[in-house]
Amino acid sequence: MDYIDLRSDTVTKPTEEMRKAMYNADVGDDVYGDDPTVNRLERMIADILEKEDAIFVPSGTFANQLALFTHCERGNEVILGDDTHIVQHEAGAASVIAGVQLRTIETDKGVLPPEKVLERIRKVEDIHFPKTGLICLENAHSNGRAIPLENFEKIRKIADDYNIPIHLDGARIFNASIALGVEPKEIAKYADSVSVCLSKGLCAPIGSLLVGSKEFIQDARKKRKIMGGGLRQAGIIAAAGIVALEKMRSRLVEDHENAKYLAKRLEEFGYINIVEQVDINMVFFRINKKFDENKFLDYLYKNGIKINPSEDGIFRFVTHYWIKRKDIDRVIELMKEFFEALE
Amino acid sequence: MDYIDLRSDTVTKPTEEMRKAMYNADVGDDVYGDDPTVNRLERMIADILEKEDAIFVPSGTFANQLALFTHCERGNEVILGDDTHIVQHEAGAASVIAGVQLRTIETDKGVLPPEKVLERIRKVEDIHFPKTGLICLENAHSNGRAIPLENFEKIRKIADDYNIPIHLDGARIFNASIALGVEPKEIAKYADSVSVCLSKGLCAPIGSLLVGSKEFIQDARKKRKIMGGGLRQAGIIAAAGIVALEKMRSRLVEDHENAKYLAKRLEEFGYINIVEQVDINMVFFRINKKFDENKFLDYLYKNGIKINPSEDGIFRFVTHYWIKRKDIDRVIELMKEFFEALE
Amino acid sequence: MDYIDLRSDTVTKPTEEMRKAMYNADVGDDVYGDDPTVNRLERMIADILEKEDAIFVPSGTFANQLALFTHCERGNEVILGDDTHIVQHEAGAASVIAGVQLRTIETDKGVLPPEKVLERIRKVEDIHFPKTGLICLENAHSNGRAIPLENFEKIRKIADDYNIPIHLDGARIFNASIALGVEPKEIAKYADSVSVCLSKGLCAPIGSLLVGSKEFIQDARKKRKIMGGGLRQAGIIAAAGIVALEKMRSRLVEDHENAKYLAKRLEEFGYINIVEQVDINMVFFRINKKFDENKFLDYLYKNGIKINPSEDGIFRFVTHYWIKRKDIDRVIELMKEFFEALE
Amino acid sequence: MDYIDLRSDTVTKPTEEMRKAMYNADVGDDVYGDDPTVNRLERMIADILEKEDAIFVPSGTFANQLALFTHCERGNEVILGDDTHIVQHEAGAASVIAGVQLRTIETDKGVLPPEKVLERIRKVEDIHFPKTGLICLENAHSNGRAIPLENFEKIRKIADDYNIPIHLDGARIFNASIALGVEPKEIAKYADSVSVCLSKGLCAPIGSLLVGSKEFIQDARKKRKIMGGGLRQAGIIAAAGIVALEKMRSRLVEDHENAKYLAKRLEEFGYINIVEQVDINMVFFRINKKFDENKFLDYLYKNGIKINPSEDGIFRFVTHYWIKRKDIDRVIELMKEFFEALE
Repeated sequence: MDYIDLRSDTVTKPTEEMRKAMYNADVGDDVYGDDPTVNRLERMIADILEKEDAIFVPSGTFANQLALFTHCERGNEVILGDDTHIVQHEAGAASVIAGVQLRTIETDKGVLPPEKVLERIRKVEDIHFPKTGLICLENAHSNGRAIPLENFEKIRKIADDYNIPIHLDGARIFNASIALGVEPKEIAKYADSVSVCLSKGLCAPIGSLLVGSKEFIQDARKKRKIMGGGLRQAGIIAAAGIVALEKMRSRLVEDHENAKYLAKRLEEFGYINIVEQVDINMVFFRINKKFDENKFLDYLYKNGIKINPSEDGIFRFVTHYWIKRKDIDRVIELMKEFFEALE
Repeated sequence: MDYIDLRSDTVTKPTEEMRKAMYNADVGDDVYGDDPTVNRLERMIADILEKEDAIFVPSGTFANQLALFTHCERGNEVILGDDTHIVQHEAGAASVIAGVQLRTIETDKGVLPPEKVLERIRKVEDIHFPKTGLICLENAHSNGRAIPLENFEKIRKIADDYNIPIHLDGARIFNASIALGVEPKEIAKYADSVSVCLSKGLCAPIGSLLVGSKEFIQDARKKRKIMGGGLRQAGIIAAAGIVALEKMRSRLVEDHENAKYLAKRLEEFGYINIVEQVDINMVFFRINKKFDENKFLDYLYKNGIKINPSEDGIFRFVTHYWIKRKDIDRVIELMKEFFEALE
Repeated sequence: MDYIDLRSDTVTKPTEEMRKAMYNADVGDDVYGDDPTVNRLERMIADILEKEDAIFVPSGTFANQLALFTHCERGNEVILGDDTHIVQHEAGAASVIAGVQLRTIETDKGVLPPEKVLERIRKVEDIHFPKTGLICLENAHSNGRAIPLENFEKIRKIADDYNIPIHLDGARIFNASIALGVEPKEIAKYADSVSVCLSKGLCAPIGSLLVGSKEFIQDARKKRKIMGGGLRQAGIIAAAGIVALEKMRSRLVEDHENAKYLAKRLEEFGYINIVEQVDINMVFFRINKKFDENKFLDYLYKNGIKINPSEDGIFRFVTHYWIKRKDIDRVIELMKEFFEALE
Repeated sequence: MDYIDLRSDTVTKPTEEMRKAMYNADVGDDVYGDDPTVNRLERMIADILEKEDAIFVPSGTFANQLALFTHCERGNEVILGDDTHIVQHEAGAASVIAGVQLRTIETDKGVLPPEKVLERIRKVEDIHFPKTGLICLENAHSNGRAIPLENFEKIRKIADDYNIPIHLDGARIFNASIALGVEPKEIAKYADSVSVCLSKGLCAPIGSLLVGSKEFIQDARKKRKIMGGGLRQAGIIAAAGIVALEKMRSRLVEDHENAKYLAKRLEEFGYINIVEQVDINMVFFRINKKFDENKFLDYLYKNGIKINPSEDGIFRFVTHYWIKRKDIDRVIELMKEFFEALE
């Protein structure tokens, strides 16, 4: 069965064009730096984000953790929002790979209050203090919001005052770019390094990129090897990444529109609350009604729809390339059936 | 010169009685478990806090970090207040020694909001989540407050619901005990392990203790060795620790009274604000006046008074065994001289 | 230019059949366990090696390091040959990812002396000792030898006596299987876990597998995520892996024969010494003649041949799918030209 | 009962003079750098070994691990003998604290073959290689030998050729100095850093020192804090350390003579083999006779003698300040009784 899969945009399968590109990919051994397709992809993203260099890695978590590992010395402190992907969904890797101390801050719906960042920076050298090694931002945020760039501007200024680098988790930077109506490089310019995912809304099967200065990326190449991320004929999957960057970025706007449409339709229920602003391709909502969640998930699944369980009562539906408007209508219809049957 | 030293209660020199006890101490090689004085001290603190066993370690930071290292597996998440000693003043050690991910929460003047703790606990097994390995409390808090036990009771209940151990940084547990008017064991009972400092208000020259279950302490003995904390004839300093526990606990009340007296006298200035409740032996204040802090510190130093520089404009004065009421009067007098000369 | 590339079997590009398999691969999100092609590949290798389960990972280094990380607790000791890939060519990762103490032993041309292994095992619990957490073997060894199984049998017995698991770096287990004339499972049976590379002699573009018990692999799935190795539509590259396992194993014998042929032809020179037994697809040799190595490498490169620089004066030439007998003749011919021109 | 304790020189209790020095010690808070006695001790050892600076730490393991942590970046490789204290008896700490990869070499009775050291150094920058961060030497070796300085000279030359620092585990450097007939600084000069134990043959109750360049020690101060080794009124124990350095070094010659005497007397048995050259205060021997070791240990213990169990059949008896010649005679007498009773 072809499921309507709303669990995440990570579930996106490659397009026919990507499959062809992979079939035809010119490859080499990337550990020797010999893969022309990987080299082209790395150059392409560096140019898009106006940074000096880039490195191809197996996953988004890998890209973020490689950034922490490369920016920081072990024992450094990293300031970041308590609700970021690095804190929430990377399995505690920051304490294992980079060996850094996270200093988490409560955000205002994903927006890191600049004054809190300033407060937490270690301003003097003191034997009792770890060094503040990095500030991490995220845009679009995994809560579904595009973070306003005025916020980034303020934090960049603070970071500069104390000479602290910034890493941007830009797994969905192209979604943010569309939602904010600016070029991706306008978001990236506030950060020293940016991670970008090819296998989320952009539909590539595998792979992320880490972007930064020439020196930073050179150091990251050694550390990627330590982490077991030195691949061989990676050009195969890089070829799909090139299609992702060339062809799939602009169409993300459809996913955003579909998410807005889905939100509007969910509001029809009356007892469903949209709990986050719908900036990108995600709808977060709460169902204010008594029901058995397992039965709900089962019902949808049997009818060809995959969703994730709620987290603390909040559901997240994600739109993407393989979700068309009729799929959304189908989901709404089935949800109505399910909840009407309860009464 | 004999300075009036208000920097911390860590500056306390041993008493004559302690020096005699150290001179006469019966010792052995503690790595072989042969030191009778260490064994006696460990038994004594375990009995006071009604825990099964205890281990002697070189410092308060060592005790806390050994607790994290023993409770947690590397990569676990630890929930604790953003303003705790472990986060603020242990040089980032948690990411180096235990290799854990700190999940810091903004506190209400040192009080950890139970609902925030609950929110941050990883409630389900998920491949994206680190396991919540520990919750850390601190009492007395290094902000100078004794934390009400109702708060501990609530957090203990939450911890029990999710089967998560609690470590209490009890560096100043005896100060808390006096301020709260309860036995130390009444504070310790909410925690699985407690660290206690002998070299702060209790005046012992060196040493802390970590207290917990028999099994926990046995595991900690191996990990203490890994951290380089296996000492030899440690009975020398343990002997001072025994005096500290036997003779110095009850007199901490004088330090608290002196701190209150100091706060009252500081309020005479008009432009000095006491910024924290004075529960124990610490007075935090702000001087709302334009002045050159370096000149202020120099002036006091030249007149035989040592204080720490302010942190973010806040000064901390700490009373202890070697600070008598007349010393406080002398400090106030000199401060008046300094500020009057400004006008 | 199509180079004759003798640097390694990692340089092997995918075959046409692999490209087609990737083009047609049925995929899903492997982090959710939804990728049917990955699941099939994991099942296939587990069956071949007669182990319970398997996990697909990005690289051979990743597979080995994941094995260390999963078998050991941090601070454990790992006994292994000083000349193994884990020690020599994995960038020190064992001290970063797993955090284990390597206890390296000098081997007899890759063969780990069982009595040395026995000697280094920590036989009693002592506060001064790390626990021996793992023994690592390697077959075929990266020195080009197939290690006799009698050696494995002896080490397995010792490991069993002390209840220590064994990991086998089987990056080239299928080469070993052919060289030893036994089924791969006959090699794997001495180990609790085995890593296998798809992207060396088997020509798949990317990917390795780690094989072990059900429980071990379940634990490894979480740790793979921590290491950033959770991939999405990994079925694309797994599809090539399936072709590798089904079609490419038996033909490795050609590479071995070509290596033997190459060795024989090198011996024609008179001043070239083959320094290792040619068991698999590698020829190690020394050129006992005065010459400029950089000029030698340049000369070959300009004539379409890629080789690695020597290590401590020893050259390694590796045969593989894309090296035909005529390519070998061409290399010999060019080498003769180069060295004759010197005289 | 006052035992004759041959287990180690770590069991030495402080002398009366040390107790008096501790009683009278002038102290301060060493975390603030305020302890005059600690400062004096650090200066004293730096002068003795002709290095720029020194730092006082709680134990010998702490000193060695702090050296690794300060010299190396995590993931670096450390070359050292397989039979050194760091490898054998520090509980795997190098993989936890410093996070380095040990590259152990089989020694010739404690002597590290220079050609093996050279072989293991990573000579070129390569993405597959960890950086060689340190070479460790040990003198006197924990096998009881004083290592000839010609060996150190050769290794120093190799280290210099590749710009690699050397750490010397000099826990018993003063024993080595006597055995070799040279000043301690003549041994120390081959190393960038040296650890020295005060609580072994020198009889101080607690403490070790790490010595090196000014910059190295400054860095070590921060890292000592991370490891929990920042002590407060450490002058108490430093005072005993000063006595140790001033009064106890020259008398170590008696321990060496006693060890030689003990060895000679053990040879009287006929069936006892001395298995190591007796250079310092240790006698290693094998008893070539069938007997029940537990009964042997019990018999001695009941008669007031403490010894350690054998390791792999080898016993180690250690002489020290509290072992007089008549104690040795008593031990020999009791051993004779025991073994004669067997017949």
